[in-house]
Amino acid sequence: MSGVDDEAEIRGLLERWARAVHEGDLDAVLDRHSADIVMFDVPPPHRGARGIAAYRETWPGFFEWQRQGAVFEIESLDVTAGADVAFAHALLRCGTAAEFAEDAERRLRLTVGLRRDDGRWVVVHEHHSFATS
Amino acid sequence: MSGVDDEAEIRGLLERWARAVHEGDLDAVLDRHSADIVMFDVPPPHRGARGIAAYRETWPGFFEWQRQGAVFEIESLDVTAGADVAFAHALLRCGTAAEFAEDAERRLRLTVGLRRDDGRWVVVHEHHSFATS
Repeated sequence: MSGVDDEAEIRGLLERWARAVHEGDLDAVLDRHSADIVMFDVPPPHRGARGIAAYRETWPGFFEWQRQGAVFEIESLDVTAGADVAFAHALLRCGTAAEFAEDAERRLRLTVGLRRDDGRWVVVHEHHSFATS
Repeated sequence: MSGVDDEAEIRGLLERWARAVHEGDLDAVLDRHSADIVMFDVPPPHRGARGIAAYRETWPGFFEWQRQGAVFEIESLDVTAGADVAFAHALLRCGTAAEFAEDAERRLRLTVGLRRDDGRWVVVHEHHSFATS
């Protein structure tokens, strides 16, 4: 199996992950993530969150911020899948109504790296950022 | 050929690219980039620079800024390569002496997506950002 099937599987994986982020469901957010994940998050540390324990710690503060009524939803998603390695890039609406009132074009840019481990796709890298002037 | 050889080839490609960026050599920067590249740059547009013409346009302003004496050098680089798809993430020292005096930990975070087209690796996606508090 490769190509179209893998792209569909990865698309589904990332859509479920984004929904879990929006629902603040930490177990589901972590479900398909590798022990050795490296995440470049919006805030520091500059060298990224390294390993699943550090990745896990990035989320509770985000969930708390999100509870003021922020959205977190995929607007567009592009997946490139090989037999055992894949990557995806996406644009997300991530912010509060006040933030979108100030800048309607604001989008979170997301890049994800995946590897097939023991037959299933897992996320080994995430890069989240906003453009800055 | 795959695995170790591909990782070494991609590492060399990205090291040459970073050197070309630092030297302001636009032809060499573009040499191994796909016509359909999508780049999430540090500054807007929020939805990225799409296509090689838009990617090309991101560089002259950066080269001009760099001429005040900024560095652009890879500090660490991690490559994951399959047979036809690969990605890499890296940390770079990118800034002026004044910027590093203000924050010595400042690093540019870079993620790159690659595809093998007609037997050679080409860059189809780049994501550049600084962490923001």
